[in-house]
Amino acid sequence: MMAATRMLPHPDAHDVHLTDVLFALSDPARLDLVRLIAQDGPQTVAQCQGLEPGTPKSTLSHHLKTLREAGVVRNVPSGRQRTISLRRDDLDGRFPGLLDAVLGTAGDADLADSGRGQQS
Amino acid sequence: MMAATRMLPHPDAHDVHLTDVLFALSDPARLDLVRLIAQDGPQTVAQCQGLEPGTPKSTLSHHLKTLREAGVVRNVPSGRQRTISLRRDDLDGRFPGLLDAVLGTAGDADLADSGRGQQS
Repeated sequence: MMAATRMLPHPDAHDVHLTDVLFALSDPARLDLVRLIAQDGPQTVAQCQGLEPGTPKSTLSHHLKTLREAGVVRNVPSGRQRTISLRRDDLDGRFPGLLDAVLGTAGDADLADSGRGQQS
Repeated sequence: MMAATRMLPHPDAHDVHLTDVLFALSDPARLDLVRLIAQDGPQTVAQCQGLEPGTPKSTLSHHLKTLREAGVVRNVPSGRQRTISLRRDDLDGRFPGLLDAVLGTAGDADLADSGRGQQS
C-alpha cells in the first residue's frame, strides 16, 4: 500500500498565501469538497469521490492536490485509505473570517448555481 | 472619445457568483487593485496603471475585465476617463464578510508576499 501511506508535502501555516487559498476555493467542484469536509468532518478520498461520482479520479486527484498545496486541506494516510481534513485553525489564524465568509454563503442561492461543477 | 464613453456590461448583484469573485481576487495584481480602490476610493484607469507602472496596458485591461465580469468592480465612463469603483454593497449583500476578510488580511505578512504581482 505504498500509495496510501506516502506522506505528502503541506505548506506550513505561515507559508499559506491568500491568493493561493482564494484560487483553490474558486473552482465549484473544489468548493463543494471543502463544504462537504467543513460540514461532515474529515473524509476519505473514496468519500470525496462520492460527492461527484462522474468525476474522473485524475480530476479529483488534481483538485485535492490544489487544495492541499494551497494549505486548505490536509491529506494524510489513514490505514489503507487517505483522509482529507480541513485546516480550519490554520486558515482562521492566517485569514480571520475568510473561511466562515466563504462557507457562510453555502446555504442560499449560491449552492444551487455554483454546485456540481457548473461554471457560471 | 468612443472608448472612454462606451458602457460596459456588468452582472446584476444576484448574478454575481462566489467562485467568480474568488477567482477574480486570486491574482496578486488584481488583489492589489482591489485593495487600492477599497482604501483610496474610485480610481481612474490611469491611476490603476500607476499601481504597477511596468504592467502592459493589455494586462491591466484584462485584470479590470476579470474584476468587472466577476462583479467585483464597476467600470464607468467619467469625462474623458473611465472610473473603477468597488461594488462593496453588492458584494457585502451577496457574501457577507467576504470582502472584509480578504481585505482585512492586507495589513500583515500577506501584503509583502502576495504584492506586486509575485505569484507564490
